[in-house]
Amino acid sequence: MSGASNSLEAFLAQSRERIDKCLDQVLPSADEAPVSLHEGMRYAVFSGGKRLRPAMAFAGALAVGGDPEDALPAAAAVELVHTYSLVHDDLPAMDDDDERRGRPTVHVRWDEATAILVGSALFAEAFARLASERIPPVVVERLARAAGSRGLLGGQADDLAFEPGSADLAVITGIHARKTAALFEFSAWSGARLGGLEGPELERIASYGHHYGLGFQLVDDLLDADSEECSVLSVLDAETTRQRVREEVERALAALQSLGVGAWALRGLAEHLTERLP
Amino acid sequence: MSGASNSLEAFLAQSRERIDKCLDQVLPSADEAPVSLHEGMRYAVFSGGKRLRPAMAFAGALAVGGDPEDALPAAAAVELVHTYSLVHDDLPAMDDDDERRGRPTVHVRWDEATAILVGSALFAEAFARLASERIPPVVVERLARAAGSRGLLGGQADDLAFEPGSADLAVITGIHARKTAALFEFSAWSGARLGGLEGPELERIASYGHHYGLGFQLVDDLLDADSEECSVLSVLDAETTRQRVREEVERALAALQSLGVGAWALRGLAEHLTERLP
Repeated sequence: MSGASNSLEAFLAQSRERIDKCLDQVLPSADEAPVSLHEGMRYAVFSGGKRLRPAMAFAGALAVGGDPEDALPAAAAVELVHTYSLVHDDLPAMDDDDERRGRPTVHVRWDEATAILVGSALFAEAFARLASERIPPVVVERLARAAGSRGLLGGQADDLAFEPGSADLAVITGIHARKTAALFEFSAWSGARLGGLEGPELERIASYGHHYGLGFQLVDDLLDADSEECSVLSVLDAETTRQRVREEVERALAALQSLGVGAWALRGLAEHLTERLP
Repeated sequence: MSGASNSLEAFLAQSRERIDKCLDQVLPSADEAPVSLHEGMRYAVFSGGKRLRPAMAFAGALAVGGDPEDALPAAAAVELVHTYSLVHDDLPAMDDDDERRGRPTVHVRWDEATAILVGSALFAEAFARLASERIPPVVVERLARAAGSRGLLGGQADDLAFEPGSADLAVITGIHARKTAALFEFSAWSGARLGGLEGPELERIASYGHHYGLGFQLVDDLLDADSEECSVLSVLDAETTRQRVREEVERALAALQSLGVGAWALRGLAEHLTERLP
């Protein structure tokens, strides 16, 4: 158990190193963009994030016998989309957060206009990075849908309109599925796709990412019990929520049933969720 | 001349009809997205715009012997990106405009959060629409670059930091090249590319779009002489600016030199610019 957990830690550290190197190359240099965008994009991207979505993409490639390196464009793109969504989420008109990971948010460090432009520029960069002859167009399309009005942005819109008193579990889960799980679903799916997998098995790996994402959000709700955002704790108690995390992890693991030992990193990521449970 | 001008008008009307039908199908239905996004996206997209960028994409396909219909995904994508940029541009933190085309802007009609999400959702939709097996990845990549920190968003960032007293013509032209011309360049280029053209001639058509875009922005500066935005009128008088418009039109037309009669719509669009001159 301790050995497996050490391997996962080594895998996560290696993934962080790989993705950080790639993102450093992808982001515009000081010569290529206005200084506010150049600095703001780097500030937002290099802020100590855990890089779980890229790690999941690499793990997805590994799970189907592919080279994690093949998943790099998708890993970079999903991290750029995730970071853009955080920059815009923090804006005064949205969640109005002054700090993220112990540092001033982009609109505090610069201003609102810069934060809006920096977020959008990260979004654009994700597609600039992903569009290439070596990437099947369906991967680009799937990211655009995961990020768009039917995915992440739709979840954010419903989250902003969320009223704790009137929501039920199905509504909250529907928001979490788009706001949080959609990018994890893309991560696992695209990693496996770029690792060489096609056919129905691919959707089972997407299902793994979906259930992981739902579990991840439940853990977040438990860790941030005072949040005013759309939280499952407005309708469930903590013990029931912990039980639901374990169920989502089981569903995620069940979706990997037909995969061999190569899926160890995907399995490790899911099991790691229960270890984060408060 | 009157006959040619009538043909261009008919072409523009036909282009509007074609793109509006496509955009209507592309935008999320009430079942697919939160009501604020569903309504806000349609409100922003169907607001009486001239659809010049889609028309240029169709004209680009026509110019190389292709079917305008082949350029439809690029035409839709560039109009979605253009509309997203207007929605975000109007925000209080940006240009703070309450009205556009005689109607309340999205953040006035709804709120700032909705306007931010609506804009981003239009941006995502552009890539969802463009990514397909029938579209070469280079088209997707070029739109992402035209819209990103090296293009449109970079131009907007420099525009916001613009100080009329300290700027020279080169700085202003550099901003216009990215803020305005980059999307026209993409329109002409992608239309010709999807119409079947490859090789060096393609970059000459991009150059047409670039010079058209610079001319277009100069005409806008002349029509909106009181604007506080980055305007060439802060360094040039009106007559010199009119002369520069004619020069940009000449450069745009010169870039089409090797093309035959099929390029009539591209030529007509450029000539139409001088007719708009106040």
